[in-house]
Amino acid sequence: MDRERPIIGQVNALETPRFAGPTTFARIPSITEVPDYDVAVVGIPFDTGVSYRPGARFGPAAIRAGSKLLRPYNPELRVRPFLDQQVVDAGDIAVSPFNIVAALDAVTAGITRLISADRRVLVLGGDHTIALPVLRALHAVHGPIALVHFDAHLDTWDTYFGEPYTHGTPFRRAFEEGLLAPGAFHVGIRNSLYDAQDLVDDQGFGFTIVTSVQVGHEGAAAVGARLREAVGDRPVYVSVDIDVLDPAHAPGTGTPEAGGLTSRELLEILRGLAGTRLVGADIVEVAPAYDHAELTAVAAAAVGYELLSAFTAR
Amino acid sequence: MDRERPIIGQVNALETPRFAGPTTFARIPSITEVPDYDVAVVGIPFDTGVSYRPGARFGPAAIRAGSKLLRPYNPELRVRPFLDQQVVDAGDIAVSPFNIVAALDAVTAGITRLISADRRVLVLGGDHTIALPVLRALHAVHGPIALVHFDAHLDTWDTYFGEPYTHGTPFRRAFEEGLLAPGAFHVGIRNSLYDAQDLVDDQGFGFTIVTSVQVGHEGAAAVGARLREAVGDRPVYVSVDIDVLDPAHAPGTGTPEAGGLTSRELLEILRGLAGTRLVGADIVEVAPAYDHAELTAVAAAAVGYELLSAFTAR
Amino acid sequence: MDRERPIIGQVNALETPRFAGPTTFARIPSITEVPDYDVAVVGIPFDTGVSYRPGARFGPAAIRAGSKLLRPYNPELRVRPFLDQQVVDAGDIAVSPFNIVAALDAVTAGITRLISADRRVLVLGGDHTIALPVLRALHAVHGPIALVHFDAHLDTWDTYFGEPYTHGTPFRRAFEEGLLAPGAFHVGIRNSLYDAQDLVDDQGFGFTIVTSVQVGHEGAAAVGARLREAVGDRPVYVSVDIDVLDPAHAPGTGTPEAGGLTSRELLEILRGLAGTRLVGADIVEVAPAYDHAELTAVAAAAVGYELLSAFTAR
Amino acid sequence: MDRERPIIGQVNALETPRFAGPTTFARIPSITEVPDYDVAVVGIPFDTGVSYRPGARFGPAAIRAGSKLLRPYNPELRVRPFLDQQVVDAGDIAVSPFNIVAALDAVTAGITRLISADRRVLVLGGDHTIALPVLRALHAVHGPIALVHFDAHLDTWDTYFGEPYTHGTPFRRAFEEGLLAPGAFHVGIRNSLYDAQDLVDDQGFGFTIVTSVQVGHEGAAAVGARLREAVGDRPVYVSVDIDVLDPAHAPGTGTPEAGGLTSRELLEILRGLAGTRLVGADIVEVAPAYDHAELTAVAAAAVGYELLSAFTAR
Amino acid sequence: MDRERPIIGQVNALETPRFAGPTTFARIPSITEVPDYDVAVVGIPFDTGVSYRPGARFGPAAIRAGSKLLRPYNPELRVRPFLDQQVVDAGDIAVSPFNIVAALDAVTAGITRLISADRRVLVLGGDHTIALPVLRALHAVHGPIALVHFDAHLDTWDTYFGEPYTHGTPFRRAFEEGLLAPGAFHVGIRNSLYDAQDLVDDQGFGFTIVTSVQVGHEGAAAVGARLREAVGDRPVYVSVDIDVLDPAHAPGTGTPEAGGLTSRELLEILRGLAGTRLVGADIVEVAPAYDHAELTAVAAAAVGYELLSAFTAR
Amino acid sequence: MDRERPIIGQVNALETPRFAGPTTFARIPSITEVPDYDVAVVGIPFDTGVSYRPGARFGPAAIRAGSKLLRPYNPELRVRPFLDQQVVDAGDIAVSPFNIVAALDAVTAGITRLISADRRVLVLGGDHTIALPVLRALHAVHGPIALVHFDAHLDTWDTYFGEPYTHGTPFRRAFEEGLLAPGAFHVGIRNSLYDAQDLVDDQGFGFTIVTSVQVGHEGAAAVGARLREAVGDRPVYVSVDIDVLDPAHAPGTGTPEAGGLTSRELLEILRGLAGTRLVGADIVEVAPAYDHAELTAVAAAAVGYELLSAFTAR
Repeated sequence: MDRERPIIGQVNALETPRFAGPTTFARIPSITEVPDYDVAVVGIPFDTGVSYRPGARFGPAAIRAGSKLLRPYNPELRVRPFLDQQVVDAGDIAVSPFNIVAALDAVTAGITRLISADRRVLVLGGDHTIALPVLRALHAVHGPIALVHFDAHLDTWDTYFGEPYTHGTPFRRAFEEGLLAPGAFHVGIRNSLYDAQDLVDDQGFGFTIVTSVQVGHEGAAAVGARLREAVGDRPVYVSVDIDVLDPAHAPGTGTPEAGGLTSRELLEILRGLAGTRLVGADIVEVAPAYDHAELTAVAAAAVGYELLSAFTAR
Repeated sequence: MDRERPIIGQVNALETPRFAGPTTFARIPSITEVPDYDVAVVGIPFDTGVSYRPGARFGPAAIRAGSKLLRPYNPELRVRPFLDQQVVDAGDIAVSPFNIVAALDAVTAGITRLISADRRVLVLGGDHTIALPVLRALHAVHGPIALVHFDAHLDTWDTYFGEPYTHGTPFRRAFEEGLLAPGAFHVGIRNSLYDAQDLVDDQGFGFTIVTSVQVGHEGAAAVGARLREAVGDRPVYVSVDIDVLDPAHAPGTGTPEAGGLTSRELLEILRGLAGTRLVGADIVEVAPAYDHAELTAVAAAAVGYELLSAFTAR
Repeated sequence: MDRERPIIGQVNALETPRFAGPTTFARIPSITEVPDYDVAVVGIPFDTGVSYRPGARFGPAAIRAGSKLLRPYNPELRVRPFLDQQVVDAGDIAVSPFNIVAALDAVTAGITRLISADRRVLVLGGDHTIALPVLRALHAVHGPIALVHFDAHLDTWDTYFGEPYTHGTPFRRAFEEGLLAPGAFHVGIRNSLYDAQDLVDDQGFGFTIVTSVQVGHEGAAAVGARLREAVGDRPVYVSVDIDVLDPAHAPGTGTPEAGGLTSRELLEILRGLAGTRLVGADIVEVAPAYDHAELTAVAAAAVGYELLSAFTAR
Repeated sequence: MDRERPIIGQVNALETPRFAGPTTFARIPSITEVPDYDVAVVGIPFDTGVSYRPGARFGPAAIRAGSKLLRPYNPELRVRPFLDQQVVDAGDIAVSPFNIVAALDAVTAGITRLISADRRVLVLGGDHTIALPVLRALHAVHGPIALVHFDAHLDTWDTYFGEPYTHGTPFRRAFEEGLLAPGAFHVGIRNSLYDAQDLVDDQGFGFTIVTSVQVGHEGAAAVGARLREAVGDRPVYVSVDIDVLDPAHAPGTGTPEAGGLTSRELLEILRGLAGTRLVGADIVEVAPAYDHAELTAVAAAAVGYELLSAFTAR
Repeated sequence: MDRERPIIGQVNALETPRFAGPTTFARIPSITEVPDYDVAVVGIPFDTGVSYRPGARFGPAAIRAGSKLLRPYNPELRVRPFLDQQVVDAGDIAVSPFNIVAALDAVTAGITRLISADRRVLVLGGDHTIALPVLRALHAVHGPIALVHFDAHLDTWDTYFGEPYTHGTPFRRAFEEGLLAPGAFHVGIRNSLYDAQDLVDDQGFGFTIVTSVQVGHEGAAAVGARLREAVGDRPVYVSVDIDVLDPAHAPGTGTPEAGGLTSRELLEILRGLAGTRLVGADIVEVAPAYDHAELTAVAAAAVGYELLSAFTAR
Repeated sequence: MDRERPIIGQVNALETPRFAGPTTFARIPSITEVPDYDVAVVGIPFDTGVSYRPGARFGPAAIRAGSKLLRPYNPELRVRPFLDQQVVDAGDIAVSPFNIVAALDAVTAGITRLISADRRVLVLGGDHTIALPVLRALHAVHGPIALVHFDAHLDTWDTYFGEPYTHGTPFRRAFEEGLLAPGAFHVGIRNSLYDAQDLVDDQGFGFTIVTSVQVGHEGAAAVGARLREAVGDRPVYVSVDIDVLDPAHAPGTGTPEAGGLTSRELLEILRGLAGTRLVGADIVEVAPAYDHAELTAVAAAAVGYELLSAFTAR
């Protein structure tokens, strides 16, 4: 960093108890306090694209609450995600729950205001529908994006109940709209599909699948290395549907699937992405009404921490 | 009843355990088994009109699960709601969660298929948005409807985020569409409003308010008698938002308000409506993700039992 | 009290934190420490007589945990239930969950060992089946017993699935066996029955019913006075099925019914029984797997406190 | 109000969803945005004075989350608590959980900075220990304070485990320090005490007790009127231990007692205090780890709304 | 498949929301709609054989609710379990909770009606006691059965409290009755036993043990292959006690043991059994009162999916 | 063992149901029944040293409740921890929650009374602060102690909010006081630190770190072997902060960190310590208010079982 202004990091937890004080992500400054930043953390409390259990509209608040235990130094990557770069909490992009298309446009507009060639964004969802308008905004700045997608589900289906914009379809739409660079990855896929054709379609959109079982066989470090090599020097977007974790690790989500990753595996894979050209990331599908003891929120916050560390590490 | 066919009631709980067997409401027959009926119980798993906590899409399943303890004889009203009339479970009206207007039309169509001059319907919601399309269908059969509305909230607001069809607006729309007979009632209203004008508007739509505090002062029996007298011999629709109950009695709902009715009060008021010309009823806003030990579902099922008893008692 | 031995009461909560120390009821001494007593509190962890949700086998442990906040002085009755008489915790009567008839015999034997003309017993259930063997033991000492029964349900049904000894049948069996004095009471009855004949049968067994709605109309103090007058000077057994409370006050139970008593009403009625010739009492149907935040256990412990105070008050 | 500056109220919930946006109480402005105010809402996340279940350190965050549904207009009192006066959220007073005496001093200092002859404060606890340092600060401005104390417990005990400053002792200390005007009230007291002497001591400190049972007998409106008359024109402090509510209405608290008030009763009594010379108030002992579905938090937020309305109503 | 009738699979989840519609397993047809089938899924809501936490009587309903997300195509095995064979939901076998021996006979009779040389059954328990009567029925059709038993516990104990038929004894009884082919397996065994003799006895009944720790060391794929080889071409019964999973993955069970399998391991092992001569299977000991967010139910449903896939794969 | 007195083990669970009977750890005898022992299990219900979620004061009761399923024989180590040595439950050391320093002294005194050269202790916490006074007592008997510390956190920080004795600082204090032998280990460390200096400091105190990720890479058996070799023949203290487990395995704790150990890994590592010269151990930071279905308590009890087995195995 060669800035002149001092970086403002987190409230000091050795002086101010974590159960007091600001409710921003990791107790970092608000964008209203520090308008000049490298990375903005922003919530998108929207869940109208959900096909089963709703509730991810309360996800941003839950992830922020779960982030209070995050500390300044990441010993695995040897970076200080809140001190080696200026991170701010940009609050929420408020969108209507009653109109999906209008909501997507509002998200694109909101993200566009936050990003630039140098400014990156960590999105707290919300359901997975929002990955599409975020990718639209990023594509306008960076061109085609290398997508690394962590999920139990492909999310490249065509329509649900005739609707094209849902939490099961964002990446098919993104492909169709030319937002994706070739060579996208799904990591953590498992269990049942609608049809064998789903895999054919998905491959046609350029995706490579690393199943949850394969993560267990290969090991998280190897998967992380493979992803890092695959994305190369292209602009990367990492989209983390929290249901990539096993429901034991993330009960608070809308479409749970047994047989998922452990949080240790996911965090280790994400560390493998440090050093890539990460331009944005999201953590979606945290539905706190189904969470217990902030289990899911704490895991999601840890995911956010590694993603912010990956931003730093470049 | 002067029918010739035998009435088919509930599975006998003294012979078949309640934790076994059918999952219909109160273990009554399905409409596929008994297509000729007096009253249909039907689920509308829709919650896209919700402005705060979603989840009422799982309400019909929850209320059915909570109804397993209902028994054949109502000693307060001395009727047998499942034996003095033929009640069937008509399953769910499946509607898309992604398009409110289309959903409302599908509900009207679905209810229209179930009702007639002699056939009545008990609707298990779903959020309160669905009262509007149900009233549309009932109005087509019966003309203007006398509404008795149990709720913590007026639900006569104009729009939310610019949208006219939401769970906070059905009765303003119903008034505007001419669906309501003069002299509707809100029972259980309490706590804060958006503006003093809300009350002026509401009065303009012809509503009388009995607040939760007034129920405590007057007593449930007196309120029931007052409602019975007010509706007279007009066709009546009873709409029960489960949040009319105090959150202690109904935690599993989307917009909880302290200071509500007890379930004993609500059930006693409903018994007061026995003998009126009830043409339809709903129980809405049961959101089981926020319920505990089926508390809300059991209360909602008991409400359904008194409503079905009221159908019988005429 | 004109005893010579000192009464040993509770561990002092102003010196020893309630989250430390013994796990006996209200932290009173164990029967192994103080074998000479006036009243024994005894658990019967049995729930095989349950027809819907099981789990009352964990009831005694839950009620003891919920009793840690009970203090020495009862200001409403101006008695000290643990100091004006010697109360001990007699532990549990261990019975097999696999054989109902053998379990009932073991309960009768266990209670018989604890009681005498001067020694009384407060039973922590377990399901309501156990009231029958307790009444058998008490009848052997005191002759016919005046029963005051708090419950949502009559519990005078004949059989379930052909079995005569269940949690829905103890008081019919007790009547048939001649254990009951004339003039028993049910308090808190509500909602649906199997048949109008249930009420005829129940009346034939000599029961008077005070419904939950009637408690609301008459007031708890009046109901308490009426019960006290009715039992007169006969030996009294008070049986409290915790489901007499509304599920809001007692979610942790097996057959919840909306429209029940508040805990304030129940405690006030029970205070009305102080001064009667109480020879035994039970608190049954606490199923902690369905409880939340010890809500039900705390209410059950408060019921136990008033019952022990009533023992003292004579 | 004859101010010149415009009042800034809540974020408009008809435009911005309540699950988005600021996390201040009722979505009012922060003190950093609006430094000139009539009433400050301030959190004191401290629970080291708790003798049983800890967790009230998370109370301020929980009450704020539960306050999102509060709307601008109070129809019972016909006031607009956020528009007829300037209310701000002053954040939390951060105090160490490891040293009670130091924490109390920090609270007094923090409250002193917020209040003046014209500026009042609504405190969100935290445990009841904090009422003492708040009263110290208020006494310095207003002299002896008329206390209206809602609680299941007297909180006038002397010491716990030898310590004088705990959540069971604040009002004895306040009396000893001369902070209280004669004629304080406890409302909602119930169940067991340590000794008959507790009542003698308490009376000696000038308290009148209205038990929970008495509230049921007299009615909430009458109790409210009696309190209003008793406090007359003296400066009033209202201290609401949320355990004054029955555990059914407020499970999320540290020392639950069955037989409490309903939330409807409490809110109606509080409305009776509108028009008195209220100089400060608190809501304490909300322990969200034991809450369910924000039941307790929603009730506490409604209490805060009536208290803020009472500030307005003068 | 060389049938002439068309296979009827699941309700289409891309058209009908999963929160609407039938409550059969995976939304397949009921046996009343499609009486001719290859595999019947049947519930046995019985839990009177439980020695610790009861509640598995609600297991079948919970597993069916948890199965709503299952989709038609299994990409790991490349089969369509609901389309490559006709699967139906046969409802529940209703048995009395009050008499174990009578219940076992009713189960044998009920299973016998469902199975034949060509018709197989997937049983949803209920507690593990029911494996014995299911094996009796299968043995009558197929002769000695090769048992593959997934569990934390051996379930080859002799008696509990003197009773021979409990959830801890079915496989000792099965051995004694000659129902088992030589070479049965326990997989997932862990933690403490009653005595070293337990292992000697168990070996005497012909069992091989693969402990949970061994699964971790060998890997799930290797264990699956080993089981497949061991069972060879004999008729196989797979019995899955859900407590084979770690309590993190399956909290909703009656006798939890730390240190269990992950759901990913269990599903991978089960896939190894595809291609064997599977004649029946069960999933038992799901106790939903202890579940959270359908965690256990979703895992159990996924287990059912792999078992149905294994039926198909032959 | 060459004692003359018979060992008294657990209540027999094949005769007395586990939901009945004593509430001691694993239903072993109380120290009041068997005052001569080899190992005492003792609770320290203290949590005032907690910096985030309190509640570990209820830990000892929770772990005892979770230990009811432990059986006599450990097949992995081939020992009988309750029969090869005399283990007793010594109840709780009652300490004030209001004064940390006084509490620490009371703990040291209480532990000193229980231990000797031959008598060892298994401590059930309580928060991690208590490890310091336990080490003080052990050091007085055995001299410098080889510490094996399982935790997500280093717990060698200096102060929190200026206080030296907290749950984040015990091992720095222990080092400073000379209580530790060289070569202590932290196992399970993960995620964020306050500063890179934390690691420098920690190394300066002589600690070796085995991170959670390293446990996954090396395997639990190898880590166990490495620890066993490192401690050699010195007196060993094993301190298990339950948050060493992933929150999926131990939600009921105060400072959860994603990415932790599985319970299977932890138990396997602990088995590796059998045969060392174990002089004491603790299990801390179980906060049951955040637990679900006794998940955390059952894991903690299993940890206790392996520690008691390790005591035996020497």
